[in-house]
Amino acid sequence: MSDQKLPPRSKDFSEWYNELVIRSELADYAPVRGCMIVRPYGWALWENIQQSLDRRFKATGHVNAAFPLLIPRSFIDKERSHVEGFSPELAVVTHGGGEELEEPLVIRPTSETIIGYAYSKWIQSYRDLPVLINQWNSVMRWEMRTKLFLRTTEFFWQEGHTAHATLKEADIETRQMLDIYQDFAVNDAAVPVIPGLKSEQERFAGADQTFSIEAMMGDGKALQSGTSHNLGQNFAKAFDIRYLDQNGELQYCWTTSWGLSTRFIGAIIMVHGDDQGLILPPRLAPHQAVIVPIFKTDEERTKVMLAARKIRSELVSSDFRVVLDEREGVSPGFKFNDWEMRGVPLRIEIGPKDIAKETVVLARRDIPGREGKSFVPQAGLPDSVRQALNSIQGALYERALKFREDNTTAPENYAAFKGAVEKGFAYSFWCGSAQCEKSIKEETKATLRCIPLDQTGDKGACIYCGKPAEEKAYFAKAY
Amino acid sequence: MSDQKLPPRSKDFSEWYNELVIRSELADYAPVRGCMIVRPYGWALWENIQQSLDRRFKATGHVNAAFPLLIPRSFIDKERSHVEGFSPELAVVTHGGGEELEEPLVIRPTSETIIGYAYSKWIQSYRDLPVLINQWNSVMRWEMRTKLFLRTTEFFWQEGHTAHATLKEADIETRQMLDIYQDFAVNDAAVPVIPGLKSEQERFAGADQTFSIEAMMGDGKALQSGTSHNLGQNFAKAFDIRYLDQNGELQYCWTTSWGLSTRFIGAIIMVHGDDQGLILPPRLAPHQAVIVPIFKTDEERTKVMLAARKIRSELVSSDFRVVLDEREGVSPGFKFNDWEMRGVPLRIEIGPKDIAKETVVLARRDIPGREGKSFVPQAGLPDSVRQALNSIQGALYERALKFREDNTTAPENYAAFKGAVEKGFAYSFWCGSAQCEKSIKEETKATLRCIPLDQTGDKGACIYCGKPAEEKAYFAKAY
Repeated sequence: MSDQKLPPRSKDFSEWYNELVIRSELADYAPVRGCMIVRPYGWALWENIQQSLDRRFKATGHVNAAFPLLIPRSFIDKERSHVEGFSPELAVVTHGGGEELEEPLVIRPTSETIIGYAYSKWIQSYRDLPVLINQWNSVMRWEMRTKLFLRTTEFFWQEGHTAHATLKEADIETRQMLDIYQDFAVNDAAVPVIPGLKSEQERFAGADQTFSIEAMMGDGKALQSGTSHNLGQNFAKAFDIRYLDQNGELQYCWTTSWGLSTRFIGAIIMVHGDDQGLILPPRLAPHQAVIVPIFKTDEERTKVMLAARKIRSELVSSDFRVVLDEREGVSPGFKFNDWEMRGVPLRIEIGPKDIAKETVVLARRDIPGREGKSFVPQAGLPDSVRQALNSIQGALYERALKFREDNTTAPENYAAFKGAVEKGFAYSFWCGSAQCEKSIKEETKATLRCIPLDQTGDKGACIYCGKPAEEKAYFAKAY
Repeated sequence: MSDQKLPPRSKDFSEWYNELVIRSELADYAPVRGCMIVRPYGWALWENIQQSLDRRFKATGHVNAAFPLLIPRSFIDKERSHVEGFSPELAVVTHGGGEELEEPLVIRPTSETIIGYAYSKWIQSYRDLPVLINQWNSVMRWEMRTKLFLRTTEFFWQEGHTAHATLKEADIETRQMLDIYQDFAVNDAAVPVIPGLKSEQERFAGADQTFSIEAMMGDGKALQSGTSHNLGQNFAKAFDIRYLDQNGELQYCWTTSWGLSTRFIGAIIMVHGDDQGLILPPRLAPHQAVIVPIFKTDEERTKVMLAARKIRSELVSSDFRVVLDEREGVSPGFKFNDWEMRGVPLRIEIGPKDIAKETVVLARRDIPGREGKSFVPQAGLPDSVRQALNSIQGALYERALKFREDNTTAPENYAAFKGAVEKGFAYSFWCGSAQCEKSIKEETKATLRCIPLDQTGDKGACIYCGKPAEEKAYFAKAY
C-alpha cells in the first residue's frame, strides 16, 4: 500500500515481477527457505482458477479425493525413471511422535506412487474402469533457487490420476485434459498457449509421453503452464494395477496424470501486467470492478456514498465481484493507483457531477488515461459493466497473442535462430535427435518447449545439424 | 459393493463404524501408519461441508489464504503451553534435497506459530486490524491408535486465525465462530450440539479459553466436533504481533483460532447411521436422491430408461444432486441395498407400472420399509422431492436430539453419575476444581466435555466432592 512506483517492467522484468508479487499482496516469503505464503488476494485468484478448472474436470466425469501427504521412501524407488527424476528433490521425514521411523517417509513430490498403490487395491475388474480422480493439494520439491509462484519448494496444484483399460483410452484422456488446460488458459485466463508434445529429454519422470501448454511471458521467455502425461503401463507394472478383462484375463491398466499449479498465477502476472502493476483477466479477477467514491464536503460525501452503495448492491445482485473502496484518509488518486497496481480490470468512479448527471465513469485497467474512460448512465449499469468486462477479457487475449506472434520467428539458419531465442520463440525444424537438442541448449540456453500438435506435414532441414527433419518445434529460454 | 451385511450397529458399534467407512467407500487406510485416503464419495461429502462452512466464513468477512506446510522446529518452542502440547506429536523433516538440514522442520500440527510470524510482519497499525484469515489444509499429529476420520495422523480441516485490537473483539470473534459451527451442525448436518466452554485441563495448548461444540454419538459417547479458541495475547507476545494504536502507542494484538475437521464426517456417520449403513443429511449428501429403474423385458427397459432420464434432467435442472443408477447386471434389490448402505436420503423407483400411472415411488432412507414409501405423480416431481428432503432433514435432527435427550441425565449422586456416563451424558454441578475433574476421569473414564453457555444461574453441590458449585457441566466418555 505504498505510493512508491514499481521498477519499470521494460527495464528490469525480474525485479518488476518480484516487487509486484509482494506489493500487490499476492504472496510473501515464508520463514522456511523456498516456501511461500499465498496471501488472501493471491488465494482468491487461485480459488477462481480452481473453480474454473474443477467445473471442467467434473463436467468430464472426474471426481476429487485426497491421498496422504507422506509416502514411504521405498515407493519412489519402484519406478525407475521416477526415482531418478525425483530423488534429488525430496523432503524426508525421519522422526515421528518423538521416535526415529523404521522407514523414512517422503513428503509427496507428486502422487503417482501412492495413488498407484491405492488403485492396485481398488481396481479388480474392467467394470471398475475407468477411474478418473483428481486432487487439489500441495506438493514439495526441494529447490535451491526460488521465485514466488514460479519455483518454490512447496507449491499448490491439482494432480489428476486416471486408470484405463486400453492405451487408446489413456491417450484420449491425456489429450482431453490438455484441451481442458488450453480452454481454461485461453478463455478464462486470456493467456494464449501452444499445446504440444514434449521431447524425450523434457518428459515427466515415468511418462511415455508428456504434453504441455506453453505460454510466452512479457519478456519473451516461455513458461510451461500445464502438463498432461500418458504414463503407459509404467506405474501399472511398478504398482501392480491390474484388472480382469471381459474374457477373464488379467491385464495391466494404462494410466495418465496431469497437473496445473500456482505457477499459472506467474503466467497471468507476466503475460498481462504493465508498469502500473497487475492486470487481471475479468473471468478470474477476485474483484472485477472497484467503485471509488469522489467527494470533498460532508454533504457530497453523503450523496456519493448513498449512490455508490446502491451501485454496489445492483452489481452484486447481477453476480459481479465488486468492491467499494470506503477507506478514509486516503485520496481518490491514491486509491486509483492502489487498485491499478492490484490489477482490478474496471474502475467505477462516482462523484458529485456524476450524481447530478446520473452517470458514472468507467475506467479500463488495460487502456491507460483518457482513452480507457467512458461516461455511462447509472441506469442499466450492469449491462455496461458486462460489456466492458467482456471487452477487456477479449482485448487482453488479443494483445497477448499479438505479442507472441510479434516475438515468434521461423529463423532461416542457426545464426538467426540464436538471435530469435534472445527475444522470443524460434519455430524451427528439428531432426528429432537428443544431441541437437542438447547442443542448442548448451549454446543458446534455449530449450525445446514443445512439438506443437498442429504440424503442417511439411519437411525441412534441422535448424542445428541440417539433416532432414519431419517436424517443427518451438525453442525458447524458459522459466 | 459386496452383498454382505454390516455387523449390527447395536451389537458392535466400533466394528459397524469401521466396516461402514470402508464398505461405503468414504475412506481407506493408507500405506503410512495412521494416515487415511479420503475416497471420492467421502471427499464429495467433505466438499459439501467445506462449501457450507466457507459460505458462512465469507459472509462474516473472512478470507482464505495458504500458509506453508513446514514450520521451523524453533517456532513451536516459542509459546510455552504450545510446545508442551504438541511436541510429542510432531513429524520431523531432517533432510531436504539430499542434505541434512541445519534446523529440523516440522510438518504443521496446527498453524498458530507460522501465522503468528506472518502477522507480525503484516500488522503495523490499528488500520490493519482486524485480520480475519482462514485456511483449508491438512495437518499432522502423530497418533498411535487411529480410527478413520476420528483420529488419524494426517487429517483435513480448516483453521481460522484472526488478530484484533482488543480482548473484547477477540472474544466476540471466538463466540461468533462457535455460533457458526453450531449453525452448520444443526442446520446442515442435522447434528444437535452443545456449545460450551472447555475446562482448563481440556483447553487448546496456548489458549486462554477454548469453546467447543459437543455432540452425542449413537453409542452415547461424546465427540468434540469443532473448537474456537481465544488465544489472548499468548501468541502475540511469543511472535511479537503488535500494532500502533490511535494514540501512536505500540500494543500487542489479541488473537483467536478455530477449527473444524474431517472428524465431523465421523459425527455424521455415528449420529445418523443405522444397521443398513449410512444416512446422510440431505443438505450435505453428495447424492440427495438416486433413481433406480426397474424393468424385465427390453421393451420395458426402453420405456423406463427414457422416463428415468427425463426425471433426472428435471431434477438436475432444479439443482438437486441426483444420480441415475444405470448399472447393468445387478438387480434393483442389490441397487437398493447398495445405495441404502451409502446413505442416499431419497430413492426414486420407476418401473413399468409407474410409467402407466405416471407416478414414481419415493422411498425415504430414514424410514425403512413400506412406511417410508409414497407414490407421487411424475408431474411436479421437483416439489415432491424438495418436500421429502426437507422432511428427512428435519426428522434426522429431531431423532438425534431425542436420542441425546433420552440419554442425558442429571444424576442425583456420584453413584448415579457413574451409571449415567456408561450410557450417555451426565449433566452435573461441578465445583471448578481440576482435582475433581481428574478423579472423575480416572474413576469413570468420563471427561468434562464442556460447561454449556446457557447456565440457569442455579447453585448446587459438586457431583464429586459435594462442595458448593456455581455451574453445571456435561461429562461423558468421548472419542
